[in-house]
Amino acid sequence: MKTGDIARTLGLEIIGNPDQPIHSAAAMESATPEQVAYVESEKHFELAAQSRAGCLIVRPEAVIPDHTCILSLHPKYDFVRVVDLLHPLSPADSGVHPTAIVPSSVLLGPEASVGPYCVIEGNVVIGARSRIEAFCFIGRDCRLSEDVHLHPRVTLYPSVQLAPRTVIHAGTVIGSDGFGYVFHAGRYTKFPQIGGVEIAEDVEIGSNVTIDRGALGTTRIGRGTKIDNLVQVAHNVTIGEDCVIAAQTGISGSSTIERQAVIAGQVGIADHVRIEEKARVGAQAGIPTGKIVRQGEFVWGTPARPMEVFKEQYGGLSRLPRLRQEVSELKKKVAQLEDLLKNQIPTT
Amino acid sequence: MKTGDIARTLGLEIIGNPDQPIHSAAAMESATPEQVAYVESEKHFELAAQSRAGCLIVRPEAVIPDHTCILSLHPKYDFVRVVDLLHPLSPADSGVHPTAIVPSSVLLGPEASVGPYCVIEGNVVIGARSRIEAFCFIGRDCRLSEDVHLHPRVTLYPSVQLAPRTVIHAGTVIGSDGFGYVFHAGRYTKFPQIGGVEIAEDVEIGSNVTIDRGALGTTRIGRGTKIDNLVQVAHNVTIGEDCVIAAQTGISGSSTIERQAVIAGQVGIADHVRIEEKARVGAQAGIPTGKIVRQGEFVWGTPARPMEVFKEQYGGLSRLPRLRQEVSELKKKVAQLEDLLKNQIPTT
Amino acid sequence: MKTGDIARTLGLEIIGNPDQPIHSAAAMESATPEQVAYVESEKHFELAAQSRAGCLIVRPEAVIPDHTCILSLHPKYDFVRVVDLLHPLSPADSGVHPTAIVPSSVLLGPEASVGPYCVIEGNVVIGARSRIEAFCFIGRDCRLSEDVHLHPRVTLYPSVQLAPRTVIHAGTVIGSDGFGYVFHAGRYTKFPQIGGVEIAEDVEIGSNVTIDRGALGTTRIGRGTKIDNLVQVAHNVTIGEDCVIAAQTGISGSSTIERQAVIAGQVGIADHVRIEEKARVGAQAGIPTGKIVRQGEFVWGTPARPMEVFKEQYGGLSRLPRLRQEVSELKKKVAQLEDLLKNQIPTT
Repeated sequence: MKTGDIARTLGLEIIGNPDQPIHSAAAMESATPEQVAYVESEKHFELAAQSRAGCLIVRPEAVIPDHTCILSLHPKYDFVRVVDLLHPLSPADSGVHPTAIVPSSVLLGPEASVGPYCVIEGNVVIGARSRIEAFCFIGRDCRLSEDVHLHPRVTLYPSVQLAPRTVIHAGTVIGSDGFGYVFHAGRYTKFPQIGGVEIAEDVEIGSNVTIDRGALGTTRIGRGTKIDNLVQVAHNVTIGEDCVIAAQTGISGSSTIERQAVIAGQVGIADHVRIEEKARVGAQAGIPTGKIVRQGEFVWGTPARPMEVFKEQYGGLSRLPRLRQEVSELKKKVAQLEDLLKNQIPTT
Repeated sequence: MKTGDIARTLGLEIIGNPDQPIHSAAAMESATPEQVAYVESEKHFELAAQSRAGCLIVRPEAVIPDHTCILSLHPKYDFVRVVDLLHPLSPADSGVHPTAIVPSSVLLGPEASVGPYCVIEGNVVIGARSRIEAFCFIGRDCRLSEDVHLHPRVTLYPSVQLAPRTVIHAGTVIGSDGFGYVFHAGRYTKFPQIGGVEIAEDVEIGSNVTIDRGALGTTRIGRGTKIDNLVQVAHNVTIGEDCVIAAQTGISGSSTIERQAVIAGQVGIADHVRIEEKARVGAQAGIPTGKIVRQGEFVWGTPARPMEVFKEQYGGLSRLPRLRQEVSELKKKVAQLEDLLKNQIPTT
Repeated sequence: MKTGDIARTLGLEIIGNPDQPIHSAAAMESATPEQVAYVESEKHFELAAQSRAGCLIVRPEAVIPDHTCILSLHPKYDFVRVVDLLHPLSPADSGVHPTAIVPSSVLLGPEASVGPYCVIEGNVVIGARSRIEAFCFIGRDCRLSEDVHLHPRVTLYPSVQLAPRTVIHAGTVIGSDGFGYVFHAGRYTKFPQIGGVEIAEDVEIGSNVTIDRGALGTTRIGRGTKIDNLVQVAHNVTIGEDCVIAAQTGISGSSTIERQAVIAGQVGIADHVRIEEKARVGAQAGIPTGKIVRQGEFVWGTPARPMEVFKEQYGGLSRLPRLRQEVSELKKKVAQLEDLLKNQIPTT
């Protein structure tokens, strides 16, 4: 594609050379004259001026001199659109690989593909254009909607439901038994884990994640939510729409995360917690059992508290040595005053 | 089954309609007239009164009016027993799937099953009724006892030993090399990881767990212990009987956890630690190298300390701003007193 | 092998019986007369004196009476060398297993092996003597050098590069998409994750690890670095040479870890962090966004601070109750002084 074609396709204005051929996308610092890049904010203008990129997507007020620039109100977002044009996903071989095991009770939508050495159990439905890569295991009665993409080696236990455009990365396990036992007569007996898992539209889930099925109810992930690698989601958890959950976070049983909450990495959320809409939880924070993080609140620490409280307490901790010093000096002064008065009083 | 049949099978008294057909189990809140549920404690009585469940398992002193009730001293435990009746595990296809690779040196017990695309290496023993699901890898010289259940995609490195009724969920790796190196001449050289892994009866292990083999000795998990998803167990760890270890906890080399200890989620246990019998470790706590957590003790925080100490320190942290305020006021008062005395002394 | 043969092969002096047959290696405490062990430091001499080992590798100044001893300046390192002699890796069946799927565009070096049920995509190169165990998935355009060892069930997304002697354990995923989204018009849109992953010589990576590909750039792991189980490495991370990263640690996007840094378990490293050469990070520490840990520094806590500062603050926290007590006593004394003076002043 030429720079002018890119601008036209995006519906954006171009300044500079519209005839530069562009074959791929790159970061501003490493882009070559055949690559397109973007400039996110003012602090990168100096770097941008030195970029060798054949084309830069920039904000209209931030045209970089001597560079071909496409003007955009959302340079990063329009860059994503360009990359989708320049780097389309490699198409799957359509159809069912001869080594895949697919019983006759499986319903396979048009243009769906099933890769080598997949094992699909009975009564599974796979929607149109869905792509199941090598080594996936899909348990009986699972329902996969249209345009689902399972990367290699995804495991779905029975009865998992995936809505359109769910993407799941390698090694992830959905629907395994929740961690629930009854302690009776000196032994742990397994509590039934016979509920379901329902994942809504446009959810993306990273690698080696674990999402347990409900005990009696259902574990739910809301539309548009993104989950990073190695996250644990326990039984009966409900996650709302458009949440972001970073790597290695763990969410315990029956907790709820409402829409547009942002959970950083390695956060621990105990059971029966509620994280309300648009709340944010800082990395490694720990939310105790039953706690409510209020709408829009930003918390940190274990046990988690509001960010400003955390900072004040942390600052107080840093100033403790000085405080101890002050108290020690006060003790001396008070002792001196006491001595003075003791000596003085008899004389009056 | 009818409600009366359920009561009879459990050996428990029923009050109400013994002829209500019941086809499955559910939570009290969502149960339908064809479902059985249980009422765990008094605080749920109000909810229970509104339940549509066809049958409730309740404590004898807590019969719910206008509901068919089965009377039990352990409603949750007896509910588990009902679920086992109503929701039996789907039986495995017995025998060896034609795509499984099973050398002639493998000993397979009666009614054992090996699923599609399993790879079993030489000299493996698999006990009676054991169920190996799709994609499992079992290294040479492994010994699996009776009634073992490997969910899809479990990896056993060579020489792992599993006692009767071990259950392992998808993606879990047992017997990989421990993390041990010798730093010599500016480089890390791998220390031998040639020990074993022995897992005792009735252990259940979650998804995507990693349990390393001993370096020279053996990594051991005791009878009845339950391990949640994404837990890490390092080389030469010894875990006792009936322990509970929640998700994403990590246990470093040569540490010991004694019987009936309870370890919450995301706990970090350094090397050569000893957690004694029935001790409890709160979520995200960190136990430093060599530390002993005493029998029955409950610890929290990093570095972990007794729960009451943690709470006192955490409370102290919250009151720090007020303490600083108090010290600041004291300083002013002492300065005033000093001034007063300074002015006064010359006059006497 | 006999004890004398072992000493000769290592080029070391032996004291005692050179004719004792030795068939394997063990820890000093459990070794039998047919096993070799080592004595690492003085504090183990007493244990060593009771060892039944047929041969002990010891420091020259620490010969154990009545035991056959091989004298070494580096007993642990020379023990590793003995184990390599006594416990050679079981050789792979060479060649390509008939069930492996290997397109004609794959270049396979001499003596390379590909195990059962591997899936290799187009244009992959696998170097001489590399060993790919069962169930591995190698995406298109991957480049594996000589003597690479993939344990069962490793997943390489497309275009991953592995240098000579890379070892990767079971369940690990390399090259999955990084966690990057653009929030635009109320929705998260995926930012392109089209960069690469390059792993240098002699890297070993544990089980169920996740290493994401670069967004536009490259994720890099340096020569000789060792990564434990369940570690997360995000997009565009750069790890230097000879680093050690313990289990369950997470490293966020675009962070850099320089050579010979040591990162303990469950550490959380936010984005754009720099951990300089030979720095050390204690277990469960959290390094905030953009922070620099200086060369050789040792930090702990969340947010991480120098170890001595952490210890002082933690000590201050323990002494808080006493400090509060002291302030409370001071308040009483000052009040008494004030009373005294108030009563006194009118009298003068």
